[in-house]
Amino acid sequence: MAFSERVTRLKSSLIREILAAAQRPEVMSFAGGLPAESMLPALDWADMPAAMGQYGTSEGEPQLRELLAAEARALGLDCQASQVLVLSGSQQALDLAAKLYIDKGTEVVVEGPTYLAALQTFQLFGAECLSVPLAADGPDIAALRARLEQHAPAFAYLIPTFQNPSGVRYSESARAQVAALLDEFKLTLIEDEPYRELTYDGGMAQPIAARLRQASWIYTGTVSKTLLPGLRVGYLIASPDLFPHLLRLKQAADLHTNRVGQWQAMQWLGTDKYRDHLGQLRDFYRGRRDAMQAVLLEHFADLADWHLPQGGLFFWLTLKQPIDTRTLLGPAMAQDVAFMPGEPFFADPDANPGCLRLNFSHVAPHRLQEGLSRLAHVIRKAQAAQTAA
Amino acid sequence: MAFSERVTRLKSSLIREILAAAQRPEVMSFAGGLPAESMLPALDWADMPAAMGQYGTSEGEPQLRELLAAEARALGLDCQASQVLVLSGSQQALDLAAKLYIDKGTEVVVEGPTYLAALQTFQLFGAECLSVPLAADGPDIAALRARLEQHAPAFAYLIPTFQNPSGVRYSESARAQVAALLDEFKLTLIEDEPYRELTYDGGMAQPIAARLRQASWIYTGTVSKTLLPGLRVGYLIASPDLFPHLLRLKQAADLHTNRVGQWQAMQWLGTDKYRDHLGQLRDFYRGRRDAMQAVLLEHFADLADWHLPQGGLFFWLTLKQPIDTRTLLGPAMAQDVAFMPGEPFFADPDANPGCLRLNFSHVAPHRLQEGLSRLAHVIRKAQAAQTAA
Repeated sequence: MAFSERVTRLKSSLIREILAAAQRPEVMSFAGGLPAESMLPALDWADMPAAMGQYGTSEGEPQLRELLAAEARALGLDCQASQVLVLSGSQQALDLAAKLYIDKGTEVVVEGPTYLAALQTFQLFGAECLSVPLAADGPDIAALRARLEQHAPAFAYLIPTFQNPSGVRYSESARAQVAALLDEFKLTLIEDEPYRELTYDGGMAQPIAARLRQASWIYTGTVSKTLLPGLRVGYLIASPDLFPHLLRLKQAADLHTNRVGQWQAMQWLGTDKYRDHLGQLRDFYRGRRDAMQAVLLEHFADLADWHLPQGGLFFWLTLKQPIDTRTLLGPAMAQDVAFMPGEPFFADPDANPGCLRLNFSHVAPHRLQEGLSRLAHVIRKAQAAQTAA
Repeated sequence: MAFSERVTRLKSSLIREILAAAQRPEVMSFAGGLPAESMLPALDWADMPAAMGQYGTSEGEPQLRELLAAEARALGLDCQASQVLVLSGSQQALDLAAKLYIDKGTEVVVEGPTYLAALQTFQLFGAECLSVPLAADGPDIAALRARLEQHAPAFAYLIPTFQNPSGVRYSESARAQVAALLDEFKLTLIEDEPYRELTYDGGMAQPIAARLRQASWIYTGTVSKTLLPGLRVGYLIASPDLFPHLLRLKQAADLHTNRVGQWQAMQWLGTDKYRDHLGQLRDFYRGRRDAMQAVLLEHFADLADWHLPQGGLFFWLTLKQPIDTRTLLGPAMAQDVAFMPGEPFFADPDANPGCLRLNFSHVAPHRLQEGLSRLAHVIRKAQAAQTAA
């Protein structure tokens, strides 16, 4: 049996295995990024035209493309509907970008930490991922410049707003400096913003793609975090030089995105109903975040450092006494507690021990105390063993 | 700007451009493979659980996997639900198979002609496609054996039932001989059966995958031809050695298939309602096929040879006086007639001039006479010019 060379880089997904194990109802899971079931809006299908059952275009539904372009223009991104490609979830943007850019050995710039599934997809296609350390207000600009001066990466993949996993939102200054650097080196930007609308302090920053004057760009988003992930409807918006290639890659991947999900998304985007729903969602998640913050302060204040996330779905904890958190997963699961170890979010996991990602949207508030106290206990016990050894 | 080496092989899709041009209402299109709109079943969403809006598993909905496995077992394929992977349309099976097997220069066996989008996907990943000529009852077995003796292909991609484009259904004898050869050389089979259920003589042949004893296999199908293509729900069933790799590739591609489409498919498969619908569909398409056959005999009897297709959606015409049918497309479109040139369905288009694919499911019967007489006229004129030159 002769598989492709690529398959030797096909790792088992830690996320998928944890999520599978975490589905037992007794497990208190801080691992996933699932929206709260109670906040999934009810769907009305009564008015869907029968034609939505027919094949559609690879670009996506014209009306949905218009709505997405209008939304992006409101954020400051100068674009037309003709630049919008509807996707089968925004994960597909990573697959298409990898196909467009990555051969074996191609260098790409990522944040450290970055989105785990992006690392996996880029590495599957053979990329060498160059990390730029992330601070509380954005990437280390000097390190980014050094990467660009010393390497020739194909693109920079950035998640500037409520990053998964770190929760970081780039400051205005960081956005301006990153845009200037990308323009200076004419480096293509892939800007991933699934969590943009989940803002808890009302802040809404202009995308970095909107600030570029020279560099090519792909901006990608999704309705999965604000409407329904089960629809699998995401999108990308690309600079005109990239769009035709991405369109052909989309067609080769799956012809087009399902039209029933696209039609549902069209019923919401840009409506008062959607604005109301987003308001309720922000209130709900802000409440869950605050509840988790209170319990974390109680059990983790001496164990870890973290910033209160102003958006997204995650706390990112850095242990004061570093330990490979992958080794904590077994003991935690034995206590019916699931979390995401931080190491796999780095291009070089072994060099970055001691972080954890904790989701705050999913666990019911009455189980927070029990879940986090068990997790703290698992950590204390492992650290004591490490100290003794 | 540095794209991947792969992108140099990214061709514009002739199908996509023709379909785009053919959407003007005045065009009589024999080009696509669209189901007739009037036969798209009405959908009832009233009972869909709210949980279908949440993220799902990469494998697909458990109940749908059970239904698909049961359907495959009824065809003679010994398989379990654990071997079923639900896809975002069966096109995705080609993308995943290409990722699993194809590096630059990897050899794969295909039929000549074969499905255009499969050729494009395999070539995008760098495959060298080795053609085996297709006769009316299956592939040239001696040519297939010669390919396997002289090359080391990664897999054979076959469409044994109502092939797109040729309409060929392999005989029992051809299926047995192909299975024996694949077993002898332990060559992986990718068996693509989107048209299986569209049978007009009641025949239903056992898949080749069901006859293998040694070789690995991927069997793929879809609900697009029998229910609604707009749902984008397809599937593959794989031998247990291949399944874990395909699952991880699916996850990296788009996390999972949309659940609302999966739920709809679950409401139909295996029900009396579905059996009734399939019966109506077969009657309707058989009627369209017969109407087209009558008009073809009138206008094309002296121009081309063809077999009456016993299933699927296409006539495949071989011109008695070969001419590159790609050169006919412009003149035909100028007459508001669209068709698919045959050359792009071959790994070596220039060596295979003179075939046309004509879809019979889409053009309204009252426009058949006009459309096909215009097309015959375009061909006669071009052939006369060729003879004169």
